[in-house]
Amino acid sequence: MYQLNETHDPALRSWVAGANRPDGDFPIQNLPFASLRPMGSNQAFRGAVAIGDHALDLAAALAAGVFDAELEPVVRAAAQPKLNGFMALGPEAWSALRLALSRLLREGTPQQAALAPCLLPLSEVEYQLAHNIGDYTDFYTSVHHATAVGRLFRPDNPLLPNYKWVPIGYHGRASSVDVSGQTFHRPCGQLKAPDAAEPSFGPCKRLDYELELGIIIGKGNPLGQPIAIEQAEQHVFGVCVFNDWSARDIQAWEYQPLGPFLSKSFASTVSPWIVTLEALVPFRAGFVRDASDPQPLPYLDSDHNRQAGALDIQLECLLQTGAMAERGESATRLSTSSFRHSYWTVAQMVTHHTVNGCNLQPGDLFGSGTQSGPKPEEAGSLLELSAGGKQAITLANGEQRTFLEDGDTVVMRAHCQREGVVRIGFGEVVSTVLPAKA
Amino acid sequence: MYQLNETHDPALRSWVAGANRPDGDFPIQNLPFASLRPMGSNQAFRGAVAIGDHALDLAAALAAGVFDAELEPVVRAAAQPKLNGFMALGPEAWSALRLALSRLLREGTPQQAALAPCLLPLSEVEYQLAHNIGDYTDFYTSVHHATAVGRLFRPDNPLLPNYKWVPIGYHGRASSVDVSGQTFHRPCGQLKAPDAAEPSFGPCKRLDYELELGIIIGKGNPLGQPIAIEQAEQHVFGVCVFNDWSARDIQAWEYQPLGPFLSKSFASTVSPWIVTLEALVPFRAGFVRDASDPQPLPYLDSDHNRQAGALDIQLECLLQTGAMAERGESATRLSTSSFRHSYWTVAQMVTHHTVNGCNLQPGDLFGSGTQSGPKPEEAGSLLELSAGGKQAITLANGEQRTFLEDGDTVVMRAHCQREGVVRIGFGEVVSTVLPAKA
Repeated sequence: MYQLNETHDPALRSWVAGANRPDGDFPIQNLPFASLRPMGSNQAFRGAVAIGDHALDLAAALAAGVFDAELEPVVRAAAQPKLNGFMALGPEAWSALRLALSRLLREGTPQQAALAPCLLPLSEVEYQLAHNIGDYTDFYTSVHHATAVGRLFRPDNPLLPNYKWVPIGYHGRASSVDVSGQTFHRPCGQLKAPDAAEPSFGPCKRLDYELELGIIIGKGNPLGQPIAIEQAEQHVFGVCVFNDWSARDIQAWEYQPLGPFLSKSFASTVSPWIVTLEALVPFRAGFVRDASDPQPLPYLDSDHNRQAGALDIQLECLLQTGAMAERGESATRLSTSSFRHSYWTVAQMVTHHTVNGCNLQPGDLFGSGTQSGPKPEEAGSLLELSAGGKQAITLANGEQRTFLEDGDTVVMRAHCQREGVVRIGFGEVVSTVLPAKA
Repeated sequence: MYQLNETHDPALRSWVAGANRPDGDFPIQNLPFASLRPMGSNQAFRGAVAIGDHALDLAAALAAGVFDAELEPVVRAAAQPKLNGFMALGPEAWSALRLALSRLLREGTPQQAALAPCLLPLSEVEYQLAHNIGDYTDFYTSVHHATAVGRLFRPDNPLLPNYKWVPIGYHGRASSVDVSGQTFHRPCGQLKAPDAAEPSFGPCKRLDYELELGIIIGKGNPLGQPIAIEQAEQHVFGVCVFNDWSARDIQAWEYQPLGPFLSKSFASTVSPWIVTLEALVPFRAGFVRDASDPQPLPYLDSDHNRQAGALDIQLECLLQTGAMAERGESATRLSTSSFRHSYWTVAQMVTHHTVNGCNLQPGDLFGSGTQSGPKPEEAGSLLELSAGGKQAITLANGEQRTFLEDGDTVVMRAHCQREGVVRIGFGEVVSTVLPAKA
């Protein structure tokens, strides 16, 4: 339903500084949304769109009178501190605003003088979570991750029988999701070594990140009314980068029989910028099942999903240890992966989630699940990279890690790139581990 | 921290009709909260307190000018359509309003004439969910339920090793929780018989209820700041009756390895009236562990919890089949149970939930988990009563059930009763199963 249109034209150039760099995250073909304000100010947060090295303050742009009258209610919704109202408007409204912004930000627009004062340098803003998250659901869409983790627990039978049929997911904790910059104390909880007679209480010793995408729901559905796969993408507002922190030792002891709980609810961190599905149209890919795998059940299958259901988004995870930070060294790369490897598409997640009648609401968050690629070095968690903590990995500066240490900063990035198309980026999600509270 | 005080005095009598019946749910010692409006009206919902056969409309009572000036902000918060703001005020405010209402509703108050017009007959009101639920967590606190369900899957080892150490819980779906009167279509989903080679898609065949209490959080805690067990009850606003519907066949196929998902997110129904923890003070009981069971780890242990951590709340589940409804027959009782049997207390649930730093927010909902008693006939689900669907139960009118059929109405009630104390009730939660959508 989202089509290539003039907003995707690779020839478009913007008058805003930094927007035309070939390696930039935020060219005029991207136009992602966030909620922000000038750094250190007490001003209200407001909706904004990234362009080059700047954010266009939508509240200021609205006040500048540059939008057509019929679009003003849409801009007003997008300029709010929380974007749930804008997300609820649906794809026609999102597309109309995208088109208007694309035209206003192009080289040669007569509105440049009016809009220039509405730009804030990205280096001088601070973010908040752009939407209230009613419910957060974490999926488990990487078959490579599921197999690698399963192998640690069940060497002979790593992948459970339901995996290739059911888009596995579980309800997560919404209250502890926050935006990039979130710091958190290493969580405490019950731990039990396999050979210990009883559990003990203390700080998590196997703290891990999970390299995920976040999927943000736009228009919801009423309770009792499933969303067919043909309509599923109309309910998706956009995508961000998502670090779903995990306490592996707490998880191992608590998770049977009802799933992860406190091992996941101490913090989860999203990137501030949400890239719309429309911006991702040039990076869609066919969704192909191996001949050896079962075809999706009919409710999870459609022509569009087969032809263009996948999204070719590259993911990257980096680590800056406390020692690196002290010496001013930048983060070192741990792994790269791609959402192209996902066993299920975004549309399949939406449709499966609602097939029982469950209602989604604007601003709901889906995690994609840890995105690990087919190669061991493409793993999206330390649990996998360190073979369950048995083989420490050596960083570029000689430090070693099995799991995260206090003071470690994890950086995750994503981008899309393809021949003949302008690269678009997601920015990054950055978060630092603080010591456990005494 | 909640103490016996003049509001609990068994000698108190109210001037409101029906409040002094010994078998009533809503004597003046109870004073539970709900959000309601005149039935069939388009008026705004508003906070109310149950008394006898009536609800005291708090918005009307506020307008009648019967409250002291310093209490008016509290009443205003309690009179809103959603009570989250009132819940956030904390126990001092809740207690102050309870005391004022107790005095205003006693026989002989000079305010009777001013308040009488603020009463609405309970038979003429309709309810909404009294609070926005940010997050819903379902616990699993009945060791009898955990053992009975575990026995169906693992006859030799019914209870998992973590059960007696960890207050097991999982994140639930908040969006599909609604108030008594909720109807829902039988959910569809993936089903797989144990002997089938592949799953198929269709309506759930093993639809079940779960007899639970709902626990509603009042004051929250900031992310990263656990709530010690000594303070835990100060964060609890009150308790209601809760039917956590379950699709057993969907659950069996989907739940490994991350827990229940679509088997639980199609509907969950709470009773409209929330009984405060303060009203429950006369029904507190000691929390005693069998000598053969491990003592709670220190973070889950306190003098108060040992001496008075348990709540002696009686639960009851009834079924009215479609055939009974057609013939005008009332619901027949399926089982009774008590929250006294819970393996974990409310305070232990709160403290465990936050020990990793997880933040609770006003209006968050905890399910207690299915409350089954030690005897087989005290089971809180059909899964247990029918031995996993193998032995149909026979109802009073001769009908049989293994799981729920279309048109079945499930009624759950709760009350507290003890020698020398006035009985208090929770009202009921009622909900009907509609056929699957074509």
